[in-house]
Amino acid sequence: MSRVTHGAGGGPAGNAPGPRRAGRRPGSADTRGRILEAARAAFAERGFDAATIRDVGARAGVDSALVHHYFGTKLRLFVAAMEMPVDFGAAAPAILAGPPDGVGERFAGFVLELWDRPEVRPLLLGVVRSASTDPVAAAMLRRMLAEGPLLTLATALDRPDAALRAALAGSQLIGLAMARLIVGVEPLASADREMLARTVGPTIQRYLVGDLAGAEGR
Amino acid sequence: MSRVTHGAGGGPAGNAPGPRRAGRRPGSADTRGRILEAARAAFAERGFDAATIRDVGARAGVDSALVHHYFGTKLRLFVAAMEMPVDFGAAAPAILAGPPDGVGERFAGFVLELWDRPEVRPLLLGVVRSASTDPVAAAMLRRMLAEGPLLTLATALDRPDAALRAALAGSQLIGLAMARLIVGVEPLASADREMLARTVGPTIQRYLVGDLAGAEGR
Repeated sequence: MSRVTHGAGGGPAGNAPGPRRAGRRPGSADTRGRILEAARAAFAERGFDAATIRDVGARAGVDSALVHHYFGTKLRLFVAAMEMPVDFGAAAPAILAGPPDGVGERFAGFVLELWDRPEVRPLLLGVVRSASTDPVAAAMLRRMLAEGPLLTLATALDRPDAALRAALAGSQLIGLAMARLIVGVEPLASADREMLARTVGPTIQRYLVGDLAGAEGR
Repeated sequence: MSRVTHGAGGGPAGNAPGPRRAGRRPGSADTRGRILEAARAAFAERGFDAATIRDVGARAGVDSALVHHYFGTKLRLFVAAMEMPVDFGAAAPAILAGPPDGVGERFAGFVLELWDRPEVRPLLLGVVRSASTDPVAAAMLRRMLAEGPLLTLATALDRPDAALRAALAGSQLIGLAMARLIVGVEPLASADREMLARTVGPTIQRYLVGDLAGAEGR
């Protein structure tokens, strides 16, 4: 394992900085980052259940004992690897600032662009693939859908039933991710982003600010 | 294996009749049906990758060798177990016959009711859970989304871009299944069916017959 160095712990740690764990040598930010990247690829391809620490180690070019050393369990590795490297706070003002009837389309466009980023795609695939069988991944996805950017938007837009609105919009987006990226349903899989944003945008728009017939009855 | 009898092969074979395989003893329809039911439960709970023939046998109260005898591989068992016991053809006229602007809501209501049926729920969970990691399950889900009832509806409604319309509507429904049944996002998970049909219906309606801004550009 000659590639392992224990250098300065304060440097950038690849795509998922995160807080250093107390009582643990920081190790090489580079090695840690490489393991996280390998973990994202493994979870994205195989899902939580089927991915193995051994495979992650092999992809990262390190011994699996080192993966254990840095991250402990597969579950903790998963949680560390799946931290979204996206600052929605920075994007929100632009999405909210334009014409009010275009929020849905702008958000759909933002999300579709996000999914195509090489540092985001494996995370999304990993969380969605794992969420259907693993409770921790399910909890992550639940948070992304119910408490993430969509709730921020729904709350900023100040309509009643913000949680229901965020969850409905989230259901459309997660379904789009499944159909387009995971299952590969045509013509969605090869559709261009702008067309999809224009097509799905009005759905997000209606869920976020429109009249939700019957929602009052809950 | 005293529970196995080789009775008349022509009887009903539980929830998934399907054609008998040539060159294979028909066996007891009852045993076959029990294995299929156990397989649905196992795939629904664990997904294709994690479910095992041994577990299916245990649930069905038969030796795993018998599961192999009837179905060969896990993959063939999966395909047999996941045959939808739903005749959409019988439901389509009623969905199409009412007021034209309510097709989406009627279809959403039909689907939500379907998902709650005890003979359908495990199939849906099994296919969705497995689709994210298994190519065969993904192909099944792709067919359900792109060529199933939604394409029948989109085609009957006679608008251009029927395949795109069916796939978009399918993406909303699969996302709703993920959010409501698999990940359990509130308030969708505990929302009542009628409210959800009224809320999601207009989305399906717009995808099936509405103006899909920008779709022409494909």
